[in-house]
Amino acid sequence: MRAYDIIYKKRNAEKLTKEEISFLMEGYNNSEIADYQISAFLMSVYFSGLDDTETFYLTEAMANSGKILDLKFLDGPTADKHSTGGVGDGTSLVVAPVLASCGIFVPMMSGRALGHTGGTLDKLEAIPGFNVNLEIDEFIKILKKNKFAMIGQTKDIAPVDKKMYALRDVTATVESIPLICSSIMSKKIAEGAGHILLDVKTGGGAFMSSYDDAKKLASKMVNVGKLFGRNMTAVISDMDSPLGSAVGNSLEVIQTIEVLKGNLKNDFYDLCKELSSLIILQTGTAKDIKSAAQLFSDKISSGEALNKFAAMIEFQKGNLRVIEDYSLFGKAKNNYNIRASKTGFVSSIQTRDIGIASCMLGAGRSKTDDVIDYSAGITLYKKTGDYVKEGEVTAVLHYNDAQYEYAAKLVSSAYNISDVEPQKIKLVKDIIK
Amino acid sequence: MRAYDIIYKKRNAEKLTKEEISFLMEGYNNSEIADYQISAFLMSVYFSGLDDTETFYLTEAMANSGKILDLKFLDGPTADKHSTGGVGDGTSLVVAPVLASCGIFVPMMSGRALGHTGGTLDKLEAIPGFNVNLEIDEFIKILKKNKFAMIGQTKDIAPVDKKMYALRDVTATVESIPLICSSIMSKKIAEGAGHILLDVKTGGGAFMSSYDDAKKLASKMVNVGKLFGRNMTAVISDMDSPLGSAVGNSLEVIQTIEVLKGNLKNDFYDLCKELSSLIILQTGTAKDIKSAAQLFSDKISSGEALNKFAAMIEFQKGNLRVIEDYSLFGKAKNNYNIRASKTGFVSSIQTRDIGIASCMLGAGRSKTDDVIDYSAGITLYKKTGDYVKEGEVTAVLHYNDAQYEYAAKLVSSAYNISDVEPQKIKLVKDIIK
Repeated sequence: MRAYDIIYKKRNAEKLTKEEISFLMEGYNNSEIADYQISAFLMSVYFSGLDDTETFYLTEAMANSGKILDLKFLDGPTADKHSTGGVGDGTSLVVAPVLASCGIFVPMMSGRALGHTGGTLDKLEAIPGFNVNLEIDEFIKILKKNKFAMIGQTKDIAPVDKKMYALRDVTATVESIPLICSSIMSKKIAEGAGHILLDVKTGGGAFMSSYDDAKKLASKMVNVGKLFGRNMTAVISDMDSPLGSAVGNSLEVIQTIEVLKGNLKNDFYDLCKELSSLIILQTGTAKDIKSAAQLFSDKISSGEALNKFAAMIEFQKGNLRVIEDYSLFGKAKNNYNIRASKTGFVSSIQTRDIGIASCMLGAGRSKTDDVIDYSAGITLYKKTGDYVKEGEVTAVLHYNDAQYEYAAKLVSSAYNISDVEPQKIKLVKDIIK
Repeated sequence: MRAYDIIYKKRNAEKLTKEEISFLMEGYNNSEIADYQISAFLMSVYFSGLDDTETFYLTEAMANSGKILDLKFLDGPTADKHSTGGVGDGTSLVVAPVLASCGIFVPMMSGRALGHTGGTLDKLEAIPGFNVNLEIDEFIKILKKNKFAMIGQTKDIAPVDKKMYALRDVTATVESIPLICSSIMSKKIAEGAGHILLDVKTGGGAFMSSYDDAKKLASKMVNVGKLFGRNMTAVISDMDSPLGSAVGNSLEVIQTIEVLKGNLKNDFYDLCKELSSLIILQTGTAKDIKSAAQLFSDKISSGEALNKFAAMIEFQKGNLRVIEDYSLFGKAKNNYNIRASKTGFVSSIQTRDIGIASCMLGAGRSKTDDVIDYSAGITLYKKTGDYVKEGEVTAVLHYNDAQYEYAAKLVSSAYNISDVEPQKIKLVKDIIK
């Protein structure tokens, strides 16, 4: 078998076999196949595509490049959740402890901030002392005791994905649905959960802004997951507006704790509830979506979900006292108020610009070795659909040493204000099973 | 400027600027841009194409990676000819001395055998002692004295083409019309001739078997050459049948000498005449195609073309006596007769198989470091349209130590014999100016 012939076939839009795809991935992982052949292959996939079966083969070959966790020994359902990334999208921090308190094991391996979007690991690290870098043995131990743990992907999980993603990043081959699908799914499959919920974001603040593309990606991931025998659900959810009122690491963790305490019921809360309910239903933990939603509310109001969250902080060496004392997160030295330019309804918010502004204030990275300022970010006092008066504060920037001026300009112009009240945003636009 | 953005643009089928294309080629030539980015770029070109202007920019950037000869100091027209490669296609060996004897300077840099096709340099090296590896100074000196010289491309001519061709060869990006065009034209432009004739082969024995593709390539090369201010002609010529009756290096040189002596007037002679006439006309050396053809005949019958050929051998250190004594080429130890399987007309010959068989007998290479057996090859006694009787000899294999059995099988089955006389083959199917 030769890499050349496989590239040639895909270039000519022929279907590849399991053996051909494994040969490429094994060879690339062992550095026996050169990156210049893989980049040509990736570009041919960009143009010729991969059907669901080929995408399954690719995902399997990528997962097989590392360790595949077997969680069958756990005495309960195992569930994982993945979001394709958005602005203010920290739902995992609420969903995971709620599910754990419902008796569902949640072995969650997450990523870091990417581009204008936040990352679960960075948010967790806003908790002083919190350790996301656990070995798999330690991860499993906590999982057994607390039913959930949240760590970073270890180097054993789909290592070829990391290598190939770096190559895609410099060869303009990131934006390919089968390649995005196999990158996400290879890690989810390796992480071993039996039930997987995928939250595919669509709209101006998502990586995949087009609804049709988001739906194609969601369907492909569901189909591929099923071929692995996993129980799959995907939602297409809104990212035309930032989620919740907090953008930035500490700010989002505080919002999470407020939701878990039962103090806050905003759109962020609503999406956490919808996603949790779907997984509760999917795992057979409730008989219908209504009782699943009730279970979510119960686990919040009883404080069980908050206790699970607290236990995770303790197991992972974070400072538990943050739950009662938000000042332990550290506060940004400077605030800057953004005010409405006129009176009217917030008709839309350019979500990507909010994400970029938050990064500029220090909450994200523009290079991989940038240091994150956990206290930096944006509080959104006004959201799409709200009525504002000219000069009223719509958002507040929080920052330390960053240059805030350009961020202020971005946030200010991200608010579109109109005389007409906009339609209410539907958070979950579609559910694919 | 970043390679990434240029790949991204081409992937999205946007037009590239001169600066962007130069940036890529300069960076690749200096090894500042990695081969994995160039291979992704090449695959994006395979799918998205390059228009004539972009192809001109690419050709120019490739030519500029090395030396560009300036031949304006020569006191007469300069012409070059290039064939995309075929079986038995040694027309340059006749065309060049004929043109030189008409007063046209022919600075010819040629290539070696590729795949199932022969190469001018290998044919020349069949002449004992002949040196194709001249430095440019020496080449120009002979050109001034003899009006023509035939050498290999020096390392100074479009060096980035060599590097990129090797990359295309392992990344399934050879078969792209704009990339083929710029590879050929970058060398032709660098070689400096004012008049260029391109012989684009089509049919089963050509690299580009489809007529439409051959025509697209020819038009693109003509358009690109014109953008450089060169006087361009392209012909689409037949490669559905081997050209002439000799396939193999010494055999083809002997056929050349026979034509130059005026002893042979077969289809090989006819194509040499058509191509020479077109260049004679193109350079303004004759007033119309009829007088151009007459000039060709005159230069053969007067012996002037043969004298030019002999002078070239002498200038390039070959053994001049081969012209009178063909035994100096060395003779293959073994012959094997291929016989007609039935009585009828030769309706077609699978030309590619003839080329492959000739390689197997030792006349070509399957790896770059294979040593060529100059005396090996095939004599074709019967060609398309000929009437044969069952058992009559159609072809003879010449070989030394090669395994001839499979070659014999290939040549035997390459002859299709039918009861119906086939249509006469038109050698030149189209002329594009």
